[in-house]
Amino acid sequence: MLRALAARLASGELDPVAHVRDVLERLAADPFNSVVALDAERALAEAADPRPGPLSGVAVGVKDLIDVAGLPTRCGSTVLADAPPATADAPVVARLRAAGAIVVAKLHTHEFAFGPTGDVAATGPARNPHDPTRITGGSSSGSAAAVAAGYLPFTLGTDTGASVRTPAALCGVVGLKPRFGALPTDGVFPLSETCDHVGLLTPDVDSAAFAWEVLSGEPAADPGSLRVGVLADDYWRPFDPVLDDAVAAAIAGLRAAGAEIVQLRTPMIDPLAATYAPIVGSEANATHAAWMAERPGDYQPATMARLAPWTLSAGEYIAAQRTRRRLVAELAQACAGVDALVLPTTRLRATPIGVAEVDGHDVRSALLALTLPFNLAGWPAVSVPGAVSDGGLPAGVQLVGVRLTEHQLLRVAATIAQS
Amino acid sequence: MLRALAARLASGELDPVAHVRDVLERLAADPFNSVVALDAERALAEAADPRPGPLSGVAVGVKDLIDVAGLPTRCGSTVLADAPPATADAPVVARLRAAGAIVVAKLHTHEFAFGPTGDVAATGPARNPHDPTRITGGSSSGSAAAVAAGYLPFTLGTDTGASVRTPAALCGVVGLKPRFGALPTDGVFPLSETCDHVGLLTPDVDSAAFAWEVLSGEPAADPGSLRVGVLADDYWRPFDPVLDDAVAAAIAGLRAAGAEIVQLRTPMIDPLAATYAPIVGSEANATHAAWMAERPGDYQPATMARLAPWTLSAGEYIAAQRTRRRLVAELAQACAGVDALVLPTTRLRATPIGVAEVDGHDVRSALLALTLPFNLAGWPAVSVPGAVSDGGLPAGVQLVGVRLTEHQLLRVAATIAQS
Repeated sequence: MLRALAARLASGELDPVAHVRDVLERLAADPFNSVVALDAERALAEAADPRPGPLSGVAVGVKDLIDVAGLPTRCGSTVLADAPPATADAPVVARLRAAGAIVVAKLHTHEFAFGPTGDVAATGPARNPHDPTRITGGSSSGSAAAVAAGYLPFTLGTDTGASVRTPAALCGVVGLKPRFGALPTDGVFPLSETCDHVGLLTPDVDSAAFAWEVLSGEPAADPGSLRVGVLADDYWRPFDPVLDDAVAAAIAGLRAAGAEIVQLRTPMIDPLAATYAPIVGSEANATHAAWMAERPGDYQPATMARLAPWTLSAGEYIAAQRTRRRLVAELAQACAGVDALVLPTTRLRATPIGVAEVDGHDVRSALLALTLPFNLAGWPAVSVPGAVSDGGLPAGVQLVGVRLTEHQLLRVAATIAQS
Repeated sequence: MLRALAARLASGELDPVAHVRDVLERLAADPFNSVVALDAERALAEAADPRPGPLSGVAVGVKDLIDVAGLPTRCGSTVLADAPPATADAPVVARLRAAGAIVVAKLHTHEFAFGPTGDVAATGPARNPHDPTRITGGSSSGSAAAVAAGYLPFTLGTDTGASVRTPAALCGVVGLKPRFGALPTDGVFPLSETCDHVGLLTPDVDSAAFAWEVLSGEPAADPGSLRVGVLADDYWRPFDPVLDDAVAAAIAGLRAAGAEIVQLRTPMIDPLAATYAPIVGSEANATHAAWMAERPGDYQPATMARLAPWTLSAGEYIAAQRTRRRLVAELAQACAGVDALVLPTTRLRATPIGVAEVDGHDVRSALLALTLPFNLAGWPAVSVPGAVSDGGLPAGVQLVGVRLTEHQLLRVAATIAQS
């Protein structure tokens, strides 16, 4: 889809100004609250004479946690209501512009990216295009909704524990979190410097591969023969049986494509996952402590409640990082026999906006648990739309690279994605 | 020296058993307290049938902070007086054995490596072979003394802020701290996981190059044309004028070898250096807190006094790490025009044992200040014996790789070393 759009723009079949104007009009009329700011004037001016490159003239959107020169970065928060315009593009945004892309909008984010639901923000909740009474997932809520609604073919997001993959899963699009450090996080408002990743969202796997080629500069690559691990511990089980079905269909697709499927046990997963909250909480608290003291009323109550408790000692924080490293090494050991993992992206599909618990399950944890281990580990992971056995809301299937690169992972994802 | 010794052993000119027996005898009679344990039986058995390799039959020593299978790792502390024998060699030790080296001794360390003087340890102070009333420097005290005394041609040490380079400087030998992460720290008792480096000590630069080739597996490399920075800020000034003279002689040598010398300013150095104590203190305190509570009397009082204050909050520790990263980037910016830096290794030469202050200068800080910035930055650095204008105690000159690799740095070091 992205590739075809770029080709139509390159050939002259589609006029960049017409394309950008059309996208801006649709974003301006968006009923899903995915947009926080449009950059209409600049975008139209650039479209009139687009920079050459693989994305020449393609309209893209950027999560409002990432700096775009000339626009404020508000992070979904009243705390930054008066933020001045960013003076420079974040390096990831600069890469898009260098490839000819045209940034048309800053997109909705869960406040300060600190939540996987997307319904806590200064501008109100983002709404799922598949059912506007339900959440998009977060924190890259607008980046997922704008792609799912068909407004944009490629958006940037960030992922600290779930934030690209979970909204991709809930909105039925593709979300790629590359390996830790693969994309620079400069110019991105930090949540947790040891877990933050920049990622991308697209309507389909081929678009993600094209976008990744542009962002990373790495050529496409084949995985070769493939062993894929399935995680057998209770921890990895979804609550929604449709998600089990989606993974089963993905496994069938992988087998049909010649992959060997291997059952794995990860006995360290509960204590490993338990290091996430103190690490991210402490790093986020360190960033926000001064503002929390000065202007507590500018935070959404849910964000304040989540930030405030993390006042550990240095020793406790350091111990959590040590446990993380030790258990990630054990996880790597447990997965040493496979090239990739396949599992659900979330334990639940999109839940109603503002609802913290569904059928006795904590929604936040259900939307974080299956993705955060791969932020702690720094491994690449992608969520793709899976088969939906009840014909209802989207069901995300996650592929994780143990030995595979992002491009190899996307090749495998192409064999199972239902979009 | 190391290369020639290895060649004599390889050619049969020198019998490995005779060599190892000679070294063991000299170490057993050591008046400098550089040894904490000999591995005589195993060493002699191995010498009778040495493993082939570039170091076949060469006797080496290991700082008693690094695991050697079958021997306890006591870290210079009564806290570990009853430590069981290590069950496996640390990977760096395994690399030496794979190259044919024979580990003959565990060597003296400042208690838990937490001090640059080498006179605080369960087994008493190490003594400088150039003047046994003076310190060796630390914490790799025994690793430096045993090389300086001529017992061993190659020892392993560790360096968190000074601990290979400072004892090398004070004892008149060569000490190489590679770039951060170049050698694995597994099986090494941690002081600070974000500053710890394994390093090596040898009698001369060529031995260090040979040792580095074996440890790293990287081939020797030439630096090409060279711009070397001299740091002009007050921070970098030594207190002992002989150290100024040593650097001046090194600069003359570099110029004679065709290098261009450039003056640099590093206005961020004081706040950057100020992050060292909270970072290392917090990480060390996290390791020791339980033991400090349970058995405070087993620590040397100086170590306890240095560990105890570091009970920061997680936010303070995280802030120190953020400041460190930001200011290291500024340091890199300030040094962007040069390939290497030349400066003294220490602000003072070897001081009397047990003396905390000399001419109003705090000894510990004088032995840490000029080396610790390159642990914070993770850049490779080597201390080599410089010219001694008063004919007295050794004077260490430090070369730091801004763009240079360890091998390139050692090539440059060869042009200035006085040994």
